[in-house]
Amino acid sequence: MIKRLGAGKRLSMATIHNGLVYLAGQVPDDLSVGIEAQASQVLGKIDALLAEAGTGKSSILTATVWLPNIADFAVFNTVWDAWVPAGASPARACVEARLANPSIRVEIAVIAAIL
Amino acid sequence: MIKRLGAGKRLSMATIHNGLVYLAGQVPDDLSVGIEAQASQVLGKIDALLAEAGTGKSSILTATVWLPNIADFAVFNTVWDAWVPAGASPARACVEARLANPSIRVEIAVIAAIL
Amino acid sequence: MIKRLGAGKRLSMATIHNGLVYLAGQVPDDLSVGIEAQASQVLGKIDALLAEAGTGKSSILTATVWLPNIADFAVFNTVWDAWVPAGASPARACVEARLANPSIRVEIAVIAAIL
Repeated sequence: MIKRLGAGKRLSMATIHNGLVYLAGQVPDDLSVGIEAQASQVLGKIDALLAEAGTGKSSILTATVWLPNIADFAVFNTVWDAWVPAGASPARACVEARLANPSIRVEIAVIAAIL
Repeated sequence: MIKRLGAGKRLSMATIHNGLVYLAGQVPDDLSVGIEAQASQVLGKIDALLAEAGTGKSSILTATVWLPNIADFAVFNTVWDAWVPAGASPARACVEARLANPSIRVEIAVIAAIL
Repeated sequence: MIKRLGAGKRLSMATIHNGLVYLAGQVPDDLSVGIEAQASQVLGKIDALLAEAGTGKSSILTATVWLPNIADFAVFNTVWDAWVPAGASPARACVEARLANPSIRVEIAVIAAIL
């Protein structure tokens, strides 16, 4: 009754239960780039996982965004705002937190409905 | 099948789905005041959003509290403890995190049931 | 329609609603020990609360881990990885955050299904 996507020993990239999908904190693959490109990568990974779960960004209920450097807030938001579907924005919290790898500039976790 | 309150381009103040309401991280409007008054403002905004969603603080399932200065923990808790309904306290985590605006002393996100 | 475990004035250790259990951020009881032993204590408390709720670690949907010192990440993961059931890993995010008591080395909150 729980389906998992990208299930590893440590964590699953997503868990699916009772019409909701819970994504693990998504981080960029290419850490050599700046906040703007890292944000695009993370949002692309979220799109892909939500598609695999049978849903999409219009059905995100809540998102948590961690930025190791809160000074990236404004630039991150330009990428985020362009990505959020008109009329279908999620609840969101965005706070500063250092992450496992100091080269990661953004990590995002979401809970989405599967409609 | 997803209802949104205070839907903006960047985020919605709340999303409602399948009997749950997910609130965006709530922050004070008047940042000129101290932690005690900021906490009251945030809890008041949560009350208002939950009422708009058809529920209230007795139905909060979980709350996440971010304090940019964890030294505010004790004073924040005096306001929080007075606000929590007797016999109906939520699960909670409270951690330190710097926030988008350095004048914000507290941010709170909750998930509540609509009974 | 909401059941609570370990309900206190400030928070409940767990809230149960509609087939899900939401745990408060769990912290160790004995803070005199290192990250490895603290992690074991926290995971043990999660096991106990999930059992009381009628579920277990194989049904965790998502976990949020806060480490006040992200340098503890690798050692924490050795304890975590040994605890996660094969084939039933949850979604997870792990970030750095200072906690209420500076002797606490790890705090974990989870949402689990009751199958």
